[in-house]
Amino acid sequence: MESKRNYVAADSHPMNGGEGPYIYVQNSKYQTGAVEASKEMIEEAITKHFDANKTLNSASSLNQIFLADLGCSTGPNTFLAVQNIFEVIQLKYQLEKRRHLDHSDDHVHQIPVTFQVFFNDHFSNDFNTLFKSLPPTRKYLAAGVPGSFHGRLFPNSSLHFVHCSYSLHWLSKVPSQVMDSTSPAWNKGRIHYTNAGKEVVKAYSDQYAEDMLSFLHARAEELVVGGLMVLLIPAVPDILLPSDTTNGTEKDLLGSCLVDMAKMGLVSEKRVDSFNLPMYYSSPSELKAIIERNEHFSIERMEKLNNPKKHLSLPNLQMRVLYLRAALEGLLQKRFGAEIMDELFNRFSKKVAESTFFLNPQNQNSIVLFVLLRRNPN
Amino acid sequence: MESKRNYVAADSHPMNGGEGPYIYVQNSKYQTGAVEASKEMIEEAITKHFDANKTLNSASSLNQIFLADLGCSTGPNTFLAVQNIFEVIQLKYQLEKRRHLDHSDDHVHQIPVTFQVFFNDHFSNDFNTLFKSLPPTRKYLAAGVPGSFHGRLFPNSSLHFVHCSYSLHWLSKVPSQVMDSTSPAWNKGRIHYTNAGKEVVKAYSDQYAEDMLSFLHARAEELVVGGLMVLLIPAVPDILLPSDTTNGTEKDLLGSCLVDMAKMGLVSEKRVDSFNLPMYYSSPSELKAIIERNEHFSIERMEKLNNPKKHLSLPNLQMRVLYLRAALEGLLQKRFGAEIMDELFNRFSKKVAESTFFLNPQNQNSIVLFVLLRRNPN
Repeated sequence: MESKRNYVAADSHPMNGGEGPYIYVQNSKYQTGAVEASKEMIEEAITKHFDANKTLNSASSLNQIFLADLGCSTGPNTFLAVQNIFEVIQLKYQLEKRRHLDHSDDHVHQIPVTFQVFFNDHFSNDFNTLFKSLPPTRKYLAAGVPGSFHGRLFPNSSLHFVHCSYSLHWLSKVPSQVMDSTSPAWNKGRIHYTNAGKEVVKAYSDQYAEDMLSFLHARAEELVVGGLMVLLIPAVPDILLPSDTTNGTEKDLLGSCLVDMAKMGLVSEKRVDSFNLPMYYSSPSELKAIIERNEHFSIERMEKLNNPKKHLSLPNLQMRVLYLRAALEGLLQKRFGAEIMDELFNRFSKKVAESTFFLNPQNQNSIVLFVLLRRNPN
Repeated sequence: MESKRNYVAADSHPMNGGEGPYIYVQNSKYQTGAVEASKEMIEEAITKHFDANKTLNSASSLNQIFLADLGCSTGPNTFLAVQNIFEVIQLKYQLEKRRHLDHSDDHVHQIPVTFQVFFNDHFSNDFNTLFKSLPPTRKYLAAGVPGSFHGRLFPNSSLHFVHCSYSLHWLSKVPSQVMDSTSPAWNKGRIHYTNAGKEVVKAYSDQYAEDMLSFLHARAEELVVGGLMVLLIPAVPDILLPSDTTNGTEKDLLGSCLVDMAKMGLVSEKRVDSFNLPMYYSSPSELKAIIERNEHFSIERMEKLNNPKKHLSLPNLQMRVLYLRAALEGLLQKRFGAEIMDELFNRFSKKVAESTFFLNPQNQNSIVLFVLLRRNPN
């Protein structure tokens, strides 16, 4: 027996837990929209690509489906996504059962199917809240799996379906070069690669590729052959610069607020210079090229998620500020202290309101990619 | 596909989490002693009874061991117990590997064994602390499974080894009769069955049998054939009355403190009368008879745990008070409010110090049963 694992600790950046106006649960409506928008696509994915008989280990005769939601946070979006997958697979089974009703020796359809769902997020995630929020009427067994999804989380060939929503744009760490004052990629005066030099952008995109490849490598070992993976990934359209996008521009504005506060002596300039957000938004073509470097997956579908309720979920700029605060406050507090958060987000709120970029609705161009991968035979 | 599960919510009574002098982590040395004392017995159990080749599903060829610790609390005892089991199974594999070295077609010994450990406790357990305390050098995959072990927690035939220490003396609920003023089993003026009438004792022992049978029923479905279960269960010697034992007497004294406080108007008498501790200490013969009612398990070993450090782990009466406070404070607070806890345990501390029972070291006669069960073929 060899010890073959490395449980590398990746940086964690939990969404705001607990209670209050800035917590993630209160400000995750935007993701809820994406979960709803992806519902039909997931249904189609399962109907078309999930071959229950072949995918399940028929040797074990146990008819058990193992499902994982990676980067689950504390709910409720994870429960919506899981419930949808659960129901569709269940329906598919019932249909097949009908079809095979006359084959009395067909043992696969005589045993009821049971579901085990693994909820994964970083060690610092609020699993207590997650567990207490588990829907009491659920028809699946639930477990929490703490740890970084850039490393191994599950046994070999143990999962049939993986779901990962709004998580893969988080990097496992800030690329070291952008914090190194001797490097050409030093990102002085900014907290993100938007509007930065090409060395900074390259350091970020290299880190993204490395993280995505680690993720795919680990999942390739954990998914059974024929297993499916649905990824919802915030991204940017192929032809746009980061500064042409909402995601890029808002981070740039937030950074400029910190720079302003540093000039006024409210935060340390050194701290601002060495602080960078570990988030990257790839383009569809960039992401496709990375996925294709892993030979164990075939891309069954990859397209822009059509979220018709997008404008409803973040109806105004104030909501967008709240949403960003819920997502980033934990990270910012750790670096700059809780006491400057109100000041920082008040300033940010003003800049967003005055920004010509945000005034033009045409510029609200964040996209989310729906990616369906299938585990190939080895 | 049928929905066949009932996720019955059992009452939960988490050990004190968080930080401070009364938390469980600080006051679980007594259990640590038991874990250490059971170490050799577990080694022997695995060496003698754990047949790796037969127990593992050889059809899957994956060499994966699934281990669960039920009622794990927040550590560190669960990590000690799990590490011991992990190491012994690992050693057993290495030995077998040596023996089979010449059989090059023996695929079982060519694949490294991997471990997945499931840590289970009630929904109200502090899983955040548990996860943050996971040993960083561990060589196993870890998951948390919230829920009552009196119901189903894991898929069918999915576990190879179950460990459950200091948990099965907790009842899933207080038997309803003892809280019913119209029942002959009404337990007025007491919070436990110690020194109570035989109807009260019977209500408690019936609930214990029901709970233990639910536990065994669920585990029989979850353990693979040949799988092992080690239970460490606080109990009383066969020939003694509850009032002859430490476990019984201390609960009786604690109850009398509450009755005193009710008389002084510090707590409501009604609340005291309807409050009962959901804990039961069976005798070895009683426990054996219950286990034998489940036909899926054979008792491979059942004996009093020899804990030579017992007197070291609770060296004095004051430690015993702290220990009981860590275990019961959560439950008492929920009923009587946090503000009376210091008063209650000060009174208890005095009563313990003055008690003739505790003055006699011969009376420190709590026992812990080591029970090794093996899952029979159906």
